[in-house]
Amino acid sequence: MGTAKVAVVGGAGYAGIELVRLLIEHPGFDLIAVTSDGDAGKSLVELYPALVGRTEQKFLSHTAIDSLYELDAVFLAVPHTAAMAVVPLLIERGVVVFDLSADFRLKDAELYERWYAAPHTAPDLLPAAIYGLPELNRPLLAQKSMEFVQASLTRENFALVACPGCYPTASTLAIAPAFVAGFVDDGPVIINAISGVSGAGRVPSQSKHFCSINENVNAYSVAQHRHTPEIAQILGWQVGRDVNVVFTPHLAPLTRGLLATVTVPIKPGVTGEEIAQVYAQVYGAEPFVHVLEYGSMPQTASVVGTNNAQVGVMLDEAAGILVASCAIDNLGKGAAAQAIQCANIIFGFEETAGLTAIPGVV
Amino acid sequence: MGTAKVAVVGGAGYAGIELVRLLIEHPGFDLIAVTSDGDAGKSLVELYPALVGRTEQKFLSHTAIDSLYELDAVFLAVPHTAAMAVVPLLIERGVVVFDLSADFRLKDAELYERWYAAPHTAPDLLPAAIYGLPELNRPLLAQKSMEFVQASLTRENFALVACPGCYPTASTLAIAPAFVAGFVDDGPVIINAISGVSGAGRVPSQSKHFCSINENVNAYSVAQHRHTPEIAQILGWQVGRDVNVVFTPHLAPLTRGLLATVTVPIKPGVTGEEIAQVYAQVYGAEPFVHVLEYGSMPQTASVVGTNNAQVGVMLDEAAGILVASCAIDNLGKGAAAQAIQCANIIFGFEETAGLTAIPGVV
Amino acid sequence: MGTAKVAVVGGAGYAGIELVRLLIEHPGFDLIAVTSDGDAGKSLVELYPALVGRTEQKFLSHTAIDSLYELDAVFLAVPHTAAMAVVPLLIERGVVVFDLSADFRLKDAELYERWYAAPHTAPDLLPAAIYGLPELNRPLLAQKSMEFVQASLTRENFALVACPGCYPTASTLAIAPAFVAGFVDDGPVIINAISGVSGAGRVPSQSKHFCSINENVNAYSVAQHRHTPEIAQILGWQVGRDVNVVFTPHLAPLTRGLLATVTVPIKPGVTGEEIAQVYAQVYGAEPFVHVLEYGSMPQTASVVGTNNAQVGVMLDEAAGILVASCAIDNLGKGAAAQAIQCANIIFGFEETAGLTAIPGVV
Amino acid sequence: MGTAKVAVVGGAGYAGIELVRLLIEHPGFDLIAVTSDGDAGKSLVELYPALVGRTEQKFLSHTAIDSLYELDAVFLAVPHTAAMAVVPLLIERGVVVFDLSADFRLKDAELYERWYAAPHTAPDLLPAAIYGLPELNRPLLAQKSMEFVQASLTRENFALVACPGCYPTASTLAIAPAFVAGFVDDGPVIINAISGVSGAGRVPSQSKHFCSINENVNAYSVAQHRHTPEIAQILGWQVGRDVNVVFTPHLAPLTRGLLATVTVPIKPGVTGEEIAQVYAQVYGAEPFVHVLEYGSMPQTASVVGTNNAQVGVMLDEAAGILVASCAIDNLGKGAAAQAIQCANIIFGFEETAGLTAIPGVV
Repeated sequence: MGTAKVAVVGGAGYAGIELVRLLIEHPGFDLIAVTSDGDAGKSLVELYPALVGRTEQKFLSHTAIDSLYELDAVFLAVPHTAAMAVVPLLIERGVVVFDLSADFRLKDAELYERWYAAPHTAPDLLPAAIYGLPELNRPLLAQKSMEFVQASLTRENFALVACPGCYPTASTLAIAPAFVAGFVDDGPVIINAISGVSGAGRVPSQSKHFCSINENVNAYSVAQHRHTPEIAQILGWQVGRDVNVVFTPHLAPLTRGLLATVTVPIKPGVTGEEIAQVYAQVYGAEPFVHVLEYGSMPQTASVVGTNNAQVGVMLDEAAGILVASCAIDNLGKGAAAQAIQCANIIFGFEETAGLTAIPGVV
Repeated sequence: MGTAKVAVVGGAGYAGIELVRLLIEHPGFDLIAVTSDGDAGKSLVELYPALVGRTEQKFLSHTAIDSLYELDAVFLAVPHTAAMAVVPLLIERGVVVFDLSADFRLKDAELYERWYAAPHTAPDLLPAAIYGLPELNRPLLAQKSMEFVQASLTRENFALVACPGCYPTASTLAIAPAFVAGFVDDGPVIINAISGVSGAGRVPSQSKHFCSINENVNAYSVAQHRHTPEIAQILGWQVGRDVNVVFTPHLAPLTRGLLATVTVPIKPGVTGEEIAQVYAQVYGAEPFVHVLEYGSMPQTASVVGTNNAQVGVMLDEAAGILVASCAIDNLGKGAAAQAIQCANIIFGFEETAGLTAIPGVV
Repeated sequence: MGTAKVAVVGGAGYAGIELVRLLIEHPGFDLIAVTSDGDAGKSLVELYPALVGRTEQKFLSHTAIDSLYELDAVFLAVPHTAAMAVVPLLIERGVVVFDLSADFRLKDAELYERWYAAPHTAPDLLPAAIYGLPELNRPLLAQKSMEFVQASLTRENFALVACPGCYPTASTLAIAPAFVAGFVDDGPVIINAISGVSGAGRVPSQSKHFCSINENVNAYSVAQHRHTPEIAQILGWQVGRDVNVVFTPHLAPLTRGLLATVTVPIKPGVTGEEIAQVYAQVYGAEPFVHVLEYGSMPQTASVVGTNNAQVGVMLDEAAGILVASCAIDNLGKGAAAQAIQCANIIFGFEETAGLTAIPGVV
Repeated sequence: MGTAKVAVVGGAGYAGIELVRLLIEHPGFDLIAVTSDGDAGKSLVELYPALVGRTEQKFLSHTAIDSLYELDAVFLAVPHTAAMAVVPLLIERGVVVFDLSADFRLKDAELYERWYAAPHTAPDLLPAAIYGLPELNRPLLAQKSMEFVQASLTRENFALVACPGCYPTASTLAIAPAFVAGFVDDGPVIINAISGVSGAGRVPSQSKHFCSINENVNAYSVAQHRHTPEIAQILGWQVGRDVNVVFTPHLAPLTRGLLATVTVPIKPGVTGEEIAQVYAQVYGAEPFVHVLEYGSMPQTASVVGTNNAQVGVMLDEAAGILVASCAIDNLGKGAAAQAIQCANIIFGFEETAGLTAIPGVV
């Protein structure tokens, strides 16, 4: 039985149930409620028979959270705009919030409104929301952890973690070290990514019909995907200036897994060896990010079901372009598992607590 | 660090590496060696990059086992005939052997020789080999466990577990309760099963080429599959007479997962309700076998990566035929995980030790 | 330009668009209208971009058929009950009807009502409806062809072809020769079939979500699938007595393709060689049914996109059970292509007209 | 029966058998021989059961070609270096050669030797070899056609078509119009492509094992893929200067289909509308290339089994980068079908002859 009581709000979707799967076995968290407005009253096992024998819980309605006075933290796996409607209330209660939606990722409310076509209803919370990508933002998370153990959270001293999107996680893990090292020359960051279908959510649609996806690949949302400004924001933080991102996502016939292949111009004189060294340094102590041998490229199958990221780099010397590729599980490091990694930091657990299973070797 | 030292012989194949995956995290076993003659010298991570950060081990050659004097148990994941060549030597050393090959499954050496087209070189070990399907054969395993803790193993008092094939595991779990209850009428047991491709092993071949499997299903080895006598043997044990089995395996485009759908004639007067009750009784206390609501049928996705089996039954009343379907992971309950379940019993651990991860919900 | 003017009613679904695909290139039919109530007004290419450059047609509403006075035939690809609402009107107009729904397949209206839970509103048409499985029912189709060329169709002399379901087509092609030859002994016909997902139709649902199907197999509708009485009816016609059918369909992760594996008890003394001979004789002159070498089993990939069926047989001599397996494309021989085969016969074209493409070799 | 007699050399591989599939039904070509050194003596149907009933041919050994004196053309589907060994002999005989290998694609023998690590043994043939991408190189093919009909081919006036690689075909069709129109600004051409597994050929290997590919994506051969100089060469021809290409191929779990997504910097002031107009003009009369509505992106499923290419474009205005994506079938427009398109031109048939089937709609 864990020491912190948590709930998953929006637990019937793919990211939500992945949170549930991980929290059931987490040594530090005690999952006391899972909500779903659409499936309230049904058992978790009814929707996800893989959970048989592991939980007797039923989905509660979202409002059930209101009367769970002992809650320490809430994981929000609801759509954007739905999250910002409930976050202020949770913060008011002193609950730590891990929001998997996009609502608190962008610091600029206007930018949010432009890309999400909706007014932001809690812009005052944006400055203090912590972007939950530990490898690039651990200090802020760690600092909040110290506050958390030293004092109760208040309306002014709240803990709101804006968990990153799946594409930004893979894209920035792939290329951030090159930016940090000052290796990147002028020119756009060209990102091509390939995602499994679970990233598009559980709600059935024509485009998610098996027969639409199977034996098929395509680009989508070209120049229009909402993760674009989020990627630009994180990369911009690394270098203190605006970064020009061209992001083209693709869909492929797999359930889980996401690969981001990033190309950037590299300053003359920088060698592949130097690049390899920087990546090794930046990620050397990271428990979840593994840099492959220089020139080797990662595959998504190696990280499915985990919080791991695998990164490969190769300098195209003739063109002066660095190609960096990062594989994650879109529901793992790209969503639920990374949220739990952040929660581990905030609550002072081992950062790897509950995230060490090796789900898929073959 | 576990209390019993174990090795996996033949660890580069799919069943072998699944053993490795499970043993790395097992609280009671300490995996001190993994062998592969074909890949000796390579790191495990080189072949299976999902293991990065989780093991630094390299594949040893098979003969390296000879000098590991502290070994308590060996898991053999080598082809048939290769297993029986090494088992006597291991037994001589007092090592507990879990053999995932077919070499010690059939009690009748002649039957073995007919189906496997090879002479059996250790027939004297057959009588005492324990068929490792705990749900149908737990007493023999448990008795060996008591002997194990009370005294050292000897040439006469050895522990050799013949781990079942994937098809026999699913087929017999599906239908055994009906036999045990005396519900089955005269007539053949018709088994149609569908397997994922990992069941065919890691060695590349035309028939395992992605383009041969993708978007394709077919029956194979009709009336000739080697698991047929094994199924007949176990079912025969339940009723004390010969059972006539017609077994037709199929291949489908999935990596892991195995579904066996079994039809048997049911004696007049037996109702669906009675059948449901018997299944609930037989499997009610089993940690790994879950019987679905009467009329519901299991799906393989719900058990992939686990030692679980899910069973569904439905009586076709008009025809007097019971349809029972069982889903397992061919590498899990059908191979590696079940071997560890047996090892847990023999070594006196919790039967579920190291087998409680929930790898795939979505 | 073809000589007979045809329309597809319900052309937006998978069977409907497969009819369109085949009719666009058919040398004898001129496709003058394609209807869809849900997608009326959209171009066919919008829904099915593979058709770009091959048709400029738009989906019309169903009622547009009423004013197409020159229609010679209509292919109905609408759900059951919707078909029987419109068939009488079409027959009144002297239009030849190929109904891909279940409405006119069963000769017994009560049986229909029991399995389809709906009253049959045109039972007077059932006796003269022709079951459109040419290999087992060609004389009736051929006779109608002669009538067709000799005289106009009338209310009394109409041509209504009830096109078979996908499962009945594969199941009966697999086993009918054994029945015809009198080889089948008493006992139930056990049919296990595996279907691609397109057989479940185009309408999105949770169960057809890519993530529900991918890496998954399961049985469904056990003892309750509506194709069961249809199979029993056709097999019964071959032997002049009731046939006891146990039918268990399964779903596998493929878009197209259907495999039916059938087991029946065989009379003592009948040999595998005799069975092989009978199959060779029965299907020897059939352009679309190919019997594989005795003991070889068909794969669905070999027939996808075609009107072909491949059949394999093997006698399990120890058990006295014949295992027969038949592979078809559920949308081809199992739906659209077979409907066109029937149409070719009725309209006096070569039976293979428009059905000779070889879509998939790799 | 066709008017020109042709053979496929290397017909057992995927590109070879796709040639066979198309040639069997081609109205102008008469396929008189199919060779395979590895499978000589076997029937085509044995390897590819989809061909049952459509051909009785057996694979001949490669040398059988030597005694086929009436041959008009040969399609070579053998590995690189094997092709250049046989091409001179065929040319000597006055046979038109369509070489699907890489041997005659690059004009620069040294470049060939650097990328293919083998000396070029017939460099004298390189200048006159015609790069067989009709949409970008039709005049040369058409001119050869006129010569072909006017006079016998000779050692000096031979017809050797170097059929393009699958990646160069899709990549250059995606972006060539922007180059032709002078819209492309300085900076590298970044190409990310995703291919189905049939592109890697039929020979089994660990990396093509179903379990290696299924539920997996990865980049490979980064900065090292042999199609890179070929792409640079064709794009260079469009603008008369060197073009800097960064090419990153990916593998995805599909059998057929290839998508290339290309990004290039666009000169200031060029609008999306202008780009759309240019693409419409360049490809407006092309029977096999379809430009989608501006902003729509193609999917591979729409072209599988065909010689079609679908192209989508979208200008990322904020970044000044054009994103262009092209979907083809790697074995169709990317190999066999395009070779036949070239052959149609050379032999004076309709350019679309034998290439009009619509294999896959669903």
